[in-house]
Amino acid sequence: MSREMSEPYYAVVFTSQRSDGDNGYGNMADRMEELAREQPGFLGVESARDASGAGITVSYWSSLEAIANWKKHEAHQVAQEKGKQTWYENYKVRICKVEREYSF
Amino acid sequence: MSREMSEPYYAVVFTSQRSDGDNGYGNMADRMEELAREQPGFLGVESARDASGAGITVSYWSSLEAIANWKKHEAHQVAQEKGKQTWYENYKVRICKVEREYSF
Repeated sequence: MSREMSEPYYAVVFTSQRSDGDNGYGNMADRMEELAREQPGFLGVESARDASGAGITVSYWSSLEAIANWKKHEAHQVAQEKGKQTWYENYKVRICKVEREYSF
Repeated sequence: MSREMSEPYYAVVFTSQRSDGDNGYGNMADRMEELAREQPGFLGVESARDASGAGITVSYWSSLEAIANWKKHEAHQVAQEKGKQTWYENYKVRICKVEREYSF
């Protein structure tokens, strides 16, 4: 989490089940994270995937417009298409407004 | 995800780094998930933790009141205290309003 976040900001919760095999997924995931970090309004990203292939990625953004712009980014569109064809059995995306936070 | 969700509803995004060793964590995590499922307003939960101990759990709730009630539940309070003392190096909780979703 590299940049400062202050509420309200937005979180994109991406929950997914990977299909078997890498099939270029690892490289593309790294590339997409690099590219996301360069987008206006990007605040940070956190990710975890367990051994069964169930994963959650949460990315943080300053506005809904920043999220919409990233969704329609050309290279990201290509990755999204490949995700549906090859990398994911299923996924769900939730666009959320962060209302409150606390940490330990 | 057992119960129907329709926007707007709420997501609690819990990102954490586990400390080394189980120390009773696995049993307590199972127990807390069972207990959460019994709470009014609980809609579902998804979780992933990778081999390094970085994890994300997202639970879904029908209202902010339901989230506040679960936070102050007595058995959950005990677990939260133990989490700070023993199980987590650090964690962050974000209370979010789900505004939009789509799936594949």
